[in-house]
Amino acid sequence: MSTVSEVTKDTKHRPYNFSAGPGALPEAVLLEAQSEMLDWHGTGLSVMEMSHRSKDFAQIAEEAEADLRELLNVPAQYKVLFLQGGASGQFAAIPMNLLAGKDRADYLVTGFWSQKAYEEAQKYCKANLVASGQSGHFQSVPEPDSWRLSKGAAYFHYTDNETIHGVEFPFVPEVTCPLVVDLSSNILAKPIDVSRYALIYAGAQKNFGPAGLTLVIVHEDYLGRALPNTPSIFDYTAQAANDSMVNTPPTYGWYIAGLTFKWLKKLGGLKEMEKLNIAKAKILYDAIDGTRHFENRVAKECRSLMNVPFFIKTEVLEKQPELEKRFLDEAKKARLLTLAGHRSVGGMRASIYNAMTREGVQALADFILQFDESIK
Amino acid sequence: MSTVSEVTKDTKHRPYNFSAGPGALPEAVLLEAQSEMLDWHGTGLSVMEMSHRSKDFAQIAEEAEADLRELLNVPAQYKVLFLQGGASGQFAAIPMNLLAGKDRADYLVTGFWSQKAYEEAQKYCKANLVASGQSGHFQSVPEPDSWRLSKGAAYFHYTDNETIHGVEFPFVPEVTCPLVVDLSSNILAKPIDVSRYALIYAGAQKNFGPAGLTLVIVHEDYLGRALPNTPSIFDYTAQAANDSMVNTPPTYGWYIAGLTFKWLKKLGGLKEMEKLNIAKAKILYDAIDGTRHFENRVAKECRSLMNVPFFIKTEVLEKQPELEKRFLDEAKKARLLTLAGHRSVGGMRASIYNAMTREGVQALADFILQFDESIK
Repeated sequence: MSTVSEVTKDTKHRPYNFSAGPGALPEAVLLEAQSEMLDWHGTGLSVMEMSHRSKDFAQIAEEAEADLRELLNVPAQYKVLFLQGGASGQFAAIPMNLLAGKDRADYLVTGFWSQKAYEEAQKYCKANLVASGQSGHFQSVPEPDSWRLSKGAAYFHYTDNETIHGVEFPFVPEVTCPLVVDLSSNILAKPIDVSRYALIYAGAQKNFGPAGLTLVIVHEDYLGRALPNTPSIFDYTAQAANDSMVNTPPTYGWYIAGLTFKWLKKLGGLKEMEKLNIAKAKILYDAIDGTRHFENRVAKECRSLMNVPFFIKTEVLEKQPELEKRFLDEAKKARLLTLAGHRSVGGMRASIYNAMTREGVQALADFILQFDESIK
Repeated sequence: MSTVSEVTKDTKHRPYNFSAGPGALPEAVLLEAQSEMLDWHGTGLSVMEMSHRSKDFAQIAEEAEADLRELLNVPAQYKVLFLQGGASGQFAAIPMNLLAGKDRADYLVTGFWSQKAYEEAQKYCKANLVASGQSGHFQSVPEPDSWRLSKGAAYFHYTDNETIHGVEFPFVPEVTCPLVVDLSSNILAKPIDVSRYALIYAGAQKNFGPAGLTLVIVHEDYLGRALPNTPSIFDYTAQAANDSMVNTPPTYGWYIAGLTFKWLKKLGGLKEMEKLNIAKAKILYDAIDGTRHFENRVAKECRSLMNVPFFIKTEVLEKQPELEKRFLDEAKKARLLTLAGHRSVGGMRASIYNAMTREGVQALADFILQFDESIK
C-alpha cells in the first residue's frame, strides 16, 4: 500500500487550483486519461468513442461501480446510478421519485445549495422549511431542538456540506422519515455510513470527476414510486433496471470517475483520505486564525473540510477596499488559482478537495500569512 | 483552406470504428484534447478542472457557440443551448416547454427513436401519431398525403435520421404548426435551413462530441412558456437567460464539441462535409447493392447518409445462420469495429458519421465484397 504522501505528491508542479467546481482532479488521473486518450487498453479507441453497450465500456462501468461500493462500503440493498443533470437535476428528481403519494417533504436550509433544493421541491410538493440560517449569514447548522419537522413528510433533505458558505454538518440528522443527503462537495472525502440514508446524491465535478456526471445511491425500498410525469431519464426505477442506461450515460465522465476511485483505493481508501483532509484543513484554518486581518466566520464545529471561505476583516477592508483584489492578483502570480469567493458572498474561498495536495494547501497558508504581514 | 482529404487523412491507422454512438471522433480532435489534457493554453489546468464561470472556460464556451452558429448559419433569433440529459431528456423537455397551454402535439414515427419521443410525450399531452411505419419495418418515410395532422397541435415532431433503422428524411416536412426536429444522428453532416424550425435538438455523441452533452437550438418566440413543474435544468427560458449555466454544464463535452466545430470549419464547413458524406455513403451502398448475398432494405430515396443497416439475405441466412457471427468476427480481425446491428433489429450496421474517413468506408466496402465472394 502506498502512503498518502507518495500517491499525492506532485510529479511536477502545476498551479494549485482552488476552484469550487469543476475542481482540481488528481494529476495521476489526468496523466492516465491523457495516455489512454486515443487507445484504451489496446482497443485503438478513445473511451469517448466506445458504444456504451460494448464489452469494453461495460468493464469500465462495472469496475467503477464495484470500486465505489468498496470505497463507501455500500450495502447490497442500494442501487448505484451514474446519471446526467447534476445535483440541480436531482433537486427535481428527488421529489418526483420519493414523494410516493405523500404531499410534503422536509428541507433543512444551511446555505445556497440547500436553499436551491428547497425552492425546486416547491414545484412538486409542500416543501417544509425545517429551519434556516439567517439569510446570507449561513455560519452554522441550526440546533436540532429548533427544527420544525412536519408530520407525514415523505423524506428529510439536507446538504451535508455547503460549498459556498463552507458549512459542514458535524453529525447525521436524527429523523424518523427517510433521510436524503446532497453530498456533492464532500462525497469520498471521509468514510460515511450509507445505511443511514434512503438516498445519497452528488455531482461529480467537485470531488471525483468532470461536470455532467451525477451519482445517486438509493435504497431499493424507495424504487417503484415515481410520479407518472417523471422524465424517463430521472426515473430511478427505470435507470436501476437498465444499469443507468435508459439513455446513453455520460460515458467519459463515468470513466474518469472510475480512475479517481482507483486512485483513492491506491491511496488507502477513505480513512486515509480523511486523515489527509483533516491535516490539510488544519493547516489552512490555523493559518487564517493566526492572522491579524483575515477571518473565517463559520462556527468552529461546522467548519467545512472541503470549502474554506475567508474574508479580510470588515474594519480593514473599509479602509483599504483594494486589498481583496490585490490578494487575488498576487495569489494568481504565486500560481494559487481560483480563490475568489462566490459572487453571492464575496471575499475569498479555497476549495481543498481530495485532489488538492498538502503542498498546495501549505503554499496557500504561507501566502496568506505573508500577505497578512504586508497589510499596514 | 485545407482540402477534405488533407484534413481527414489518418495520421496513423487506428481501427475503423463504425459505432452508432457514442461514435468515432476526428483523430485530430482527440490528439488536440490529449495534448491539452493537463494544460489548456498555458493555464496549467485541464479543461475538466476549470470553473464554468472562469474567463478561460467562457472563451471556450463562446467560441464553440460562435463556430456552431457559423457552421449552421443560425439566425440571431435563435438561442443555442448546451445542456445535459441527452435527446431522451429532450423527449420530456420539449412538451414541457412548447405545449404553451395547448393539450396536444403531432408525432411522426419513422423508427425506434421517434417512437421513443412519441411515448415520452404521452406523459405530458395528447401525443397524436401522425403516421408510422409498420412496426419493426421502418424502411421509408410515410407519404405526407397519409399523415393525420391534428388541429391545434402545439408542434410537429419528427426524427430526421433514424439511427437504428437507417431512414433519413429526403425533405423537410411542410406543416402549419411549429416544427421540431431530432437531429441527433445527422446534425452537421450537411447544411440545413435552421429558419424552418422552431426547435432543433441533438445529443452530441454521434456526430460532434462525447455523450452527456445535448445541443438545443430554439427560436426565441418559443421561450417563456414552460409548464410550472418543469425541472429548472430543462427550462429553456432559464437556460437561455443564464447562458446554459442554470447549473454546471458538461464543460468537457462542450470543449470537445468546440474542437470538432473548429475541425469542421478547417475542413471547409458543411458543404464540404456533405460532399464527403455523399461520397462515403455511395461507396458503401454501391458495395452492398453489388453483392449477391447482402441487402439494405431502406427505400432508396430515404437511405441514411450516416447509418447504413445491412443484412445477409434471409434465404442465405436460413441455410447458414452462422454467417452473421462470422462476418462480425472476421471484420473485427480486419480492424473494422462495432458493426453489429442494434439488438432490436439484428443484422449489421455501419455508422459513417463525419469522423469516419473515406478510407475507412472503402475498407468496409472491400471487406463486404470479399466476404460476399466467400459465401458458398
